[in-house]
Amino acid sequence: LELFSRQGYLQTPVRDIIDCSGFGTSTFYRFFANKEAVLAALLQDFLDSIMEAVRRYYTVEPRLDVRFIETKRVVMERFAANPELSALYARSHGLSPGIDRCLKEFDDAFLEFSYRNLRHGVLQGEFRDLPLLPIAHGILGSIKLAVSRWIIHGEFTAEEMVETVVSFHRSLAVGLLAERGAPAIET
Amino acid sequence: LELFSRQGYLQTPVRDIIDCSGFGTSTFYRFFANKEAVLAALLQDFLDSIMEAVRRYYTVEPRLDVRFIETKRVVMERFAANPELSALYARSHGLSPGIDRCLKEFDDAFLEFSYRNLRHGVLQGEFRDLPLLPIAHGILGSIKLAVSRWIIHGEFTAEEMVETVVSFHRSLAVGLLAERGAPAIET
Repeated sequence: LELFSRQGYLQTPVRDIIDCSGFGTSTFYRFFANKEAVLAALLQDFLDSIMEAVRRYYTVEPRLDVRFIETKRVVMERFAANPELSALYARSHGLSPGIDRCLKEFDDAFLEFSYRNLRHGVLQGEFRDLPLLPIAHGILGSIKLAVSRWIIHGEFTAEEMVETVVSFHRSLAVGLLAERGAPAIET
Repeated sequence: LELFSRQGYLQTPVRDIIDCSGFGTSTFYRFFANKEAVLAALLQDFLDSIMEAVRRYYTVEPRLDVRFIETKRVVMERFAANPELSALYARSHGLSPGIDRCLKEFDDAFLEFSYRNLRHGVLQGEFRDLPLLPIAHGILGSIKLAVSRWIIHGEFTAEEMVETVVSFHRSLAVGLLAERGAPAIET
């Protein structure tokens, strides 16, 4: 992560990674097939840490309506606490088919996770029965844009990034939350 | 655009652009300071064509609630009709500070445009008075993600990309639209 941040992913030869690791070449290749596998592992760990933080939050907050919004604060705070990983995530799109595959796996896992949580809310009668996959896409899209405007463009402070995403989900929740007794809304 | 699509932006020397243009070096530099200026011009034209298509659509559709959703169809169809420009837009993030600046200008103009339209809806009493800048970010984020999942990852057909974004805005509209006589919603 240190090398990728300092030199850029493309400008970091596997040789540098091995030299900095303090392990030999054969040890490296016992764990990683290539440089892409290193990137994939970094992103996977990052994703796991996000999911883990969200799960921890779920144990203290039972309300689905609060969760829908505040989960995004938990997620965005993980990004804010990890600027190097966030930069890697935001900057690497389109560099190579292998990198795109790693990033897509991250996004797919996040989409799947969002979708399942939305579905749970619908099944509990707390959320309206809206098309959920497009909503999961909208959620991820809003997160990715906020991260890139923070870490690439310096448009947001970390705090503004967090607040922008949370505010957006507060607005999204207005329509998502099923109000008991409210008339069915045509969509 | 042809050279950038075929060879990639970074792999296209200004020399190639000049040679393919059929004009001399001095003519090129009378119009463009450098390669970045060519990219900026391409993205600016693309953005203008999107804005133009939206404005044309506004002349035939007066209802703000329908506009909020169907504008996104118009926008996404411009992306779908321009795969090379969409690829340039989706793939170039993070390549260089100059490219990032071009892309940011595109995004800023789009955010500003979205924000003004939302504000208009609020002032007309058609939309709820929600925090609009985060919503504009959410809108742009959902569009960018759909474009990249179409053109980079091949996850969506062009039609699925359009429908995903339109569906998401239909859900977003459920909360955005002020129902007359509805109670004020805490946000």
